[in-house]
Amino acid sequence: MMTRGLLISVEGPEGAGKTSVVAELLPKLRAYGDVTMTREPGGVPIAEKIREVILDTEHTNMDDKTELLLYIAARRQHLKERVLPALSSGQIVLVDRFIDSSVAYQGFGRGLNPSDVDWLNQFATDGLVPDLTLYFDIDVKLGLDRIAKTRGHEVNRLDLEGIDLHERVRQGYLSILEKNPERFVLVDASQPLDLVVSDAWTIIEDRFFKDSL
Amino acid sequence: MMTRGLLISVEGPEGAGKTSVVAELLPKLRAYGDVTMTREPGGVPIAEKIREVILDTEHTNMDDKTELLLYIAARRQHLKERVLPALSSGQIVLVDRFIDSSVAYQGFGRGLNPSDVDWLNQFATDGLVPDLTLYFDIDVKLGLDRIAKTRGHEVNRLDLEGIDLHERVRQGYLSILEKNPERFVLVDASQPLDLVVSDAWTIIEDRFFKDSL
Repeated sequence: MMTRGLLISVEGPEGAGKTSVVAELLPKLRAYGDVTMTREPGGVPIAEKIREVILDTEHTNMDDKTELLLYIAARRQHLKERVLPALSSGQIVLVDRFIDSSVAYQGFGRGLNPSDVDWLNQFATDGLVPDLTLYFDIDVKLGLDRIAKTRGHEVNRLDLEGIDLHERVRQGYLSILEKNPERFVLVDASQPLDLVVSDAWTIIEDRFFKDSL
Repeated sequence: MMTRGLLISVEGPEGAGKTSVVAELLPKLRAYGDVTMTREPGGVPIAEKIREVILDTEHTNMDDKTELLLYIAARRQHLKERVLPALSSGQIVLVDRFIDSSVAYQGFGRGLNPSDVDWLNQFATDGLVPDLTLYFDIDVKLGLDRIAKTRGHEVNRLDLEGIDLHERVRQGYLSILEKNPERFVLVDASQPLDLVVSDAWTIIEDRFFKDSL
């Protein structure tokens, strides 16, 4: 029995297929309890407003620290309004992007000090860390090709950044992996969707639901 | 001759008459150089968008840390886009609200940890501190009465807070005064406008322009 719920975050670049995999995981998770599926930045009205400011394609002169602070603000509001209440009521919360995205994108990607990003994450979350993070790893070029194919019609400000940024982001994720081998688990997202889903589900099942089988 | 410009911030509660005083100070300052007059939160398009999120009267469930992070994000963008370029070109920059507002309002007012607010200010400004801060001090009830008289038609979310908050904010400002007696100078804003202006101008003139008289 879970009294505090479970927090599972999902990380990785656009194009790794996070959304498709999560859609397949949801019904499997629902066999074990109520599930809240949500995403960052956004998920609640104030955070959605912040998301609009972050992703507005006209905001090409946004400073890197401004961007980070906005992501952290959206995180805080989303956590308080959506994630914490769901966890308190014992739900399984699946969140698409959380603390590690800031480290990977704003820290490693933009070149901000990772220890500053850690401080801000700690401030926003009061130290809450996911019970498990699934990191969907994919070669940068392969991921970008997938984006171009599937949603070339709604490119946002971040998609317009160069490939170098995305390479640094991946290095960031791999660095988090090295430091958090228990919590942060790599899934090979270059495989066909059904294999990615079964890998991800095996990790979740082994970690949380083995005793109840 | 100023090679780096001057940064003067103006602090105090709504109702202290900051706006009216600043309007009188501007022509006097212009005798000594180019002047940029600006305000927080806002002053540049991205920060104005953030301001809209902060002050939206529908956002009654905004978390205190979210609010602080948004003010800090707006500060960062405004500093980079507006304040620093003006200072670099040797201008006198007069900013209505800056780092001390966060300490007074979000620290003392909301009860967030003042050392966390200091950390965030440092992060946003890279350590830039005003050359002078004019703090317009006024009894809380007197200030609120003035607001009610002069702009009852455009009350925003913060105006709707209780008088206790405003009392704590004033205590916050007085605490900053105690710790920064050189930079942070109190002006008695309960006086008639012409006396407040002459007090403020005397402080500025003595500090920066005495040698050029």
